[in-house]
Amino acid sequence: MRSWTDAFRGRRVLITGGLGLIGSNLAHALVRLKARVTIVDALLPMYGGNMHNIAEIINRVTLHRGDVRDEEAMGRLVRDKDFVFHLAAQVSYLDSVTDPFLDLDVNCRGQLVLLEACRRFNCGTKVLFAGSRLQFGATSSNPVDEEHPQRPVLPYAIHKLAAERYLQMYHQLFDLRTVVLRLANPYGPRQQMKHSRYGIVNWFIRQAMEGRVITVFGDGRQQRDYVYVDDVVRAFLMAAASERSVGEIFNVGSGQGCAFAEMAATVVRTVGSGRVEFVAWPDHYRSTDTGDYVTDIGKISRLLGWRPRVGIAEGIARTHRFYVRRAAHYWSEEPRPTCDAVAAAPVREATPW
Amino acid sequence: MRSWTDAFRGRRVLITGGLGLIGSNLAHALVRLKARVTIVDALLPMYGGNMHNIAEIINRVTLHRGDVRDEEAMGRLVRDKDFVFHLAAQVSYLDSVTDPFLDLDVNCRGQLVLLEACRRFNCGTKVLFAGSRLQFGATSSNPVDEEHPQRPVLPYAIHKLAAERYLQMYHQLFDLRTVVLRLANPYGPRQQMKHSRYGIVNWFIRQAMEGRVITVFGDGRQQRDYVYVDDVVRAFLMAAASERSVGEIFNVGSGQGCAFAEMAATVVRTVGSGRVEFVAWPDHYRSTDTGDYVTDIGKISRLLGWRPRVGIAEGIARTHRFYVRRAAHYWSEEPRPTCDAVAAAPVREATPW
Repeated sequence: MRSWTDAFRGRRVLITGGLGLIGSNLAHALVRLKARVTIVDALLPMYGGNMHNIAEIINRVTLHRGDVRDEEAMGRLVRDKDFVFHLAAQVSYLDSVTDPFLDLDVNCRGQLVLLEACRRFNCGTKVLFAGSRLQFGATSSNPVDEEHPQRPVLPYAIHKLAAERYLQMYHQLFDLRTVVLRLANPYGPRQQMKHSRYGIVNWFIRQAMEGRVITVFGDGRQQRDYVYVDDVVRAFLMAAASERSVGEIFNVGSGQGCAFAEMAATVVRTVGSGRVEFVAWPDHYRSTDTGDYVTDIGKISRLLGWRPRVGIAEGIARTHRFYVRRAAHYWSEEPRPTCDAVAAAPVREATPW
Repeated sequence: MRSWTDAFRGRRVLITGGLGLIGSNLAHALVRLKARVTIVDALLPMYGGNMHNIAEIINRVTLHRGDVRDEEAMGRLVRDKDFVFHLAAQVSYLDSVTDPFLDLDVNCRGQLVLLEACRRFNCGTKVLFAGSRLQFGATSSNPVDEEHPQRPVLPYAIHKLAAERYLQMYHQLFDLRTVVLRLANPYGPRQQMKHSRYGIVNWFIRQAMEGRVITVFGDGRQQRDYVYVDDVVRAFLMAAASERSVGEIFNVGSGQGCAFAEMAATVVRTVGSGRVEFVAWPDHYRSTDTGDYVTDIGKISRLLGWRPRVGIAEGIARTHRFYVRRAAHYWSEEPRPTCDAVAAAPVREATPW
C-alpha cells in the first residue's frame, strides 16, 4: 500500500486562501511532497494572507491574486486540479457580527462559486473545506463528536454550517468528492499577528514577546482545544489522500481540553515575558459563550489513522521560535479595519473563543 | 385574559411577501382583526405574489412594491411596526438547485437585511419567520419534533436553516423578539397555480380541474404532512400574540401523515375529474428524497394552544371551491422562467416533496 505522502507527487493542487495560516503551511507541505501547487489569495487586509508566508517556496508555486467570489477566475483555476483545498474565508467571528453581509458574501457565496466551478468544469476533483467548531454553538457535552447538535449563533458559524451543507449537497446531488474538516482552535507559525480579532494563541504569544499584560476573562477555566497547524495540515493531507474520506465530515482538534488560563500561562512561561491578568467577564460575551469545547477525534483516527502529534506546550514553543526573527513581517503593519463598524467594535485581548 | 384575537386591534403589522399564499391569507385575517396592515411584495414573476389575492381588502391595506433585499426600503418599512411577518422568499426548492445564488440572495441576504433593519430602527418589534420542514433533510424517525437533527441537502433548505439561525442570533445577541415556524407542506386558496415547481397539492387540483393525468412516482406511499393555509395563518397569529413564543422554534403541520397517492386520490375524488397514474421514480429524485415526514405538533400545542382544524379532504374541497370561478386570475398566465437554466430543469407533475 502506498503511503499517503506519495499521493501528491506530480499532482495539481489548488489552495484558496493559500497565503494564510493553514493554506500557506499546506503549500509548504505539498511542495515538499512534490505536488504542483497553485495558490489563490485575495490578500484582504484584515485577514492572514501574507506574502512572507511563502517566501521560501515562492519559486516553486504558482500564485494568483484573486477572490473566491470571482466566477470567471475560479472557473479557470479549478479546471485541471486533482485537489482543491478551500481555505479562503472571512475568518473573524467578531467581524462577522459587525458585518454579517461580508461574511455571507465570502463564506457562502464564495463557497458556492467555487463548488459551481468544480461542478461545471472539473466534477472529478476532490474539494476539502475547513469548517469550524463554532458551528456547534454552545456544547451540551464533551468531547464533541460529529453528531453533536449544531446550534451556531454567530454569522461566521452559521455560514460555516451552510457551507458544510453545500459540500454535502454537491456530493449527494452531483457526486463531487468533498470532505469537511471542522477545526477546533488552530494556531502556529504563519498566522497573522496584526490584531486580536481571531487567533488568540498567536496574539497572546505576541503580547508576551512584547512584555505586555495578557487579559483573561473570569477565572479562565473554560476548556478549549488548541490544535497545532502542522497537525491540521496533516489532517487535510491524509483526508485528501484517502478514498475513505469522500463525502465525510470530521471533527479535528488535539482531542485534549486545555483551560484558557492554562494556555495563557503556558505562553508566558514559554516566551519568558509578559504576564496574565484576570478581569470580570463583559456581559456581551456571555450571550455567545460556547462553554467548554474538546474535540472527539475518534472518527478521523479510526477512518484515516490521523492523530495529533504536537501538544500545546511544544506548539507554543515552536510558534514562538518562528516569530522571534520575523516580527517585522507579521506585526509591523497596523491593523487596517475594513469599515468604521469594525473599528468601533470591541477588541478584546482575551475572548472566550 | 384577552383572547389572542384581540391582540392585533389597531396594531401596525408588516407582511413581507404579503401577496403570496401565506402572506395574503394572513393579511385577510389581520384586516378582520382590525390590524393596520402594510404589505410589501416584490412580485417576482416565478412566485406566488398576485394582486388578486388581496382584491377584497385592497382598500384596507397599505401596499408597497419592494424587495426585502432593499436596505433603504426595509429600514423605512419596519420602523413603526408592532409585528413583522416575514414571508417573502424564493420558495421553490427545485429552482434553488438550478440557481442557488438567487436563493442565497433572497433567503439569506434578504433575511439579514430585514433583521438588521429591525435591530437598527425597531428593536422592540416581533419578527415571525416561515421555516421549512425541508430543513430536516432525510428524516430518521417520525413524527418529527423540534430537536430532530437538521441535515438539509437543497440550497432552499440550507438557507432556511441559516435564516432560522439568524433569528436565534438576533434574539440572543440583540434581544429581538423572534419566532420561527417550520412549516410542513402548506396548501390552500391563493397559492399560485402557474407551474408545478412548488405547491404540489394546488397543482394537482388544477390538473384535476382541467381533466388531466396526475403523475405519481413509485407507489406514492411516502407520507407527507399537508397543512391547510388557514391553520398556518392561525399558527402565525397565535405565535405573534403570545409572549411564550419569544425566541422559540415550532414545527407546524397537520400532525397527520397522508400518503402522497392518497392526497392525489383525494384531489381527483373531490374535484370529480382527472385521474392518477403511477410511474417509476426518476433516479435524480432519489438522492434528495426525505423519506416520510409527519410533524410532531406537541410543542406548539402545549405552549400556544394551537391545533389544526382543517383535514386534508376538507382543505382540498375548500381550495377547489376557491378556484372554480377564479382560474383566470391564477393560471391564465404562462410560467415565466427566470433563466434558461430553470427552463431546462426537469419539471415534474409529481415530486417527492
